[in-house]
Amino acid sequence: MTLKLSDIQEAQTRIAPYTLKTPLLRLHNLEEYLGCEVYVKLENMQLTKAFKLRGVMNTLLQLSDEQLKKGIIASSSGNHGHAIAYGAKMLGIKAIVAVQDTAPTFKKEKILEHGAEIIPTTVEERFKLTEDLAEEHGYELIHPFNDYRVMAGQGTIGLEILEQLPDVDQIFVPASGGGILSGIATAVKESGSSAKVHGVEPFNLPKYNVSLKNEEITKVENKGTIADGLVTVVPGDKTFPIVEKYVDAFHTATEEAMKMGQKLLLMEGKILAEISSSVGIGAVLNKEIEVNPKDKVCFVITGGNLGFEQLDYIKDIDYK
Amino acid sequence: MTLKLSDIQEAQTRIAPYTLKTPLLRLHNLEEYLGCEVYVKLENMQLTKAFKLRGVMNTLLQLSDEQLKKGIIASSSGNHGHAIAYGAKMLGIKAIVAVQDTAPTFKKEKILEHGAEIIPTTVEERFKLTEDLAEEHGYELIHPFNDYRVMAGQGTIGLEILEQLPDVDQIFVPASGGGILSGIATAVKESGSSAKVHGVEPFNLPKYNVSLKNEEITKVENKGTIADGLVTVVPGDKTFPIVEKYVDAFHTATEEAMKMGQKLLLMEGKILAEISSSVGIGAVLNKEIEVNPKDKVCFVITGGNLGFEQLDYIKDIDYK
Repeated sequence: MTLKLSDIQEAQTRIAPYTLKTPLLRLHNLEEYLGCEVYVKLENMQLTKAFKLRGVMNTLLQLSDEQLKKGIIASSSGNHGHAIAYGAKMLGIKAIVAVQDTAPTFKKEKILEHGAEIIPTTVEERFKLTEDLAEEHGYELIHPFNDYRVMAGQGTIGLEILEQLPDVDQIFVPASGGGILSGIATAVKESGSSAKVHGVEPFNLPKYNVSLKNEEITKVENKGTIADGLVTVVPGDKTFPIVEKYVDAFHTATEEAMKMGQKLLLMEGKILAEISSSVGIGAVLNKEIEVNPKDKVCFVITGGNLGFEQLDYIKDIDYK
Repeated sequence: MTLKLSDIQEAQTRIAPYTLKTPLLRLHNLEEYLGCEVYVKLENMQLTKAFKLRGVMNTLLQLSDEQLKKGIIASSSGNHGHAIAYGAKMLGIKAIVAVQDTAPTFKKEKILEHGAEIIPTTVEERFKLTEDLAEEHGYELIHPFNDYRVMAGQGTIGLEILEQLPDVDQIFVPASGGGILSGIATAVKESGSSAKVHGVEPFNLPKYNVSLKNEEITKVENKGTIADGLVTVVPGDKTFPIVEKYVDAFHTATEEAMKMGQKLLLMEGKILAEISSSVGIGAVLNKEIEVNPKDKVCFVITGGNLGFEQLDYIKDIDYK
């Protein structure tokens, strides 16, 4: 079994009443900086301010009444948890979210606001903990990326990009576990588009670059990244084969590049995004990724959940 | 003579090669805060990051070769000056900009970057100074608002709003001299749209509210406003009659409201705008203006030129 275009097309119809078709804008004021035609797909303007809601809703809407009655559980660095809590609230079901201790406070608050229960955990233990609780209480475990239902939901972004910008040449997608990347790549490639799909991950956490080079799933060390949404240390067994098959190239971005990208997008593009969303723009800006001046390049802006105080870390960044 | 719809329609064709048709977005994530359907017309994504370029280009493109050869002059709190400098560079002509001493440094830098000359002045003396220099050297004086060519250029925003959101109910426009407001109101009313057009100005500088109440142009005292783009102390003799004729209502916004609006737009809407652009959203958020929950309300986001350090003044603002 794998992810198919038809799964993503069905997801699009299924989640439409619960999610937004987000804007895709051309940002002319970024073009002198990035050296190509610049487009952004604004999932930071999605409900819950991140793409995660798409995958969560596609999963929840396929659960049986019995499953819904028992409730759902997930582990999350924040945005997936927020989507779980919001989705559960919309459907009136119970939700439990295991949140790693490194997640920003305001992300935890949003989960609680929607009425979900939080259980503290660590990046390393989060999946084990939720598996155990799911088994014990009969909760449906909703993985943040390694689940075809979730990937199909995230893949609807790919369908929207092709509709909003049919002649897109390059699509850059931030990668943590690779769920959104697998979904978009499947949507784009199986639609017959000639657009190239790129994954980008932190230089300090290159799980996909290493795994692809090794031609097998490889766990890497987290050398520390400011990108709090991109902290997965190993590709999923369901996402990796899709990435291997459909993703045209994989890149890394340094910490400096991500900060530059976030500040450029804010000050010149007038768009506020999470640092994790700035990985592609930053890497192109900092010449860590090369682009063709004639290309229409679409950057997927995955989320916009950050606290005002987090702007402090780009205060002294110079992007010019 | 006054401004006519046909002037604005002609301006639209004239300036198209030199300006952007900016996005109009629905911001779902602002709706629980503002209590209506929220739309924003994003002139902060215009070239030069403000609406001013439209009026400037519509004027420059109507000058004779002889006038172009002598050059142009303007006085400006920044955005008009930036547009003058950028427009002059595009056409390869000389430009001189008198900039008031209160304008932020980065705004002055942008004017210089485009090759224009800066002459320092004050808000009170700026128009006299530029008139004298224009007479002495034969420069074409380009007023920031009290000029039908400029108003016609800004009015193209109104045509775009009607095209992008034909069933818009309310349009809120920040007002300094009233050029953009006159242009938009003329475009909307003479197009036969039933949309209501509102002006909004700082509570501390209510030149239009006072003048409309007095039924004559009245100069008011500037009691101090953080809105550095809204510092005109008296309506223009060309803008005032148009505002009186076509604008449905005029409102004020407190300093607190403007800051709240800017922060809401940034943190929930993910859009960075100047404080002057936040006057309408802030006043609705702070209940200084009432809106109907069923209405489609469009806020004109006039500009996005601000320095990163200016975000400091909304650090402690609570918009919830």
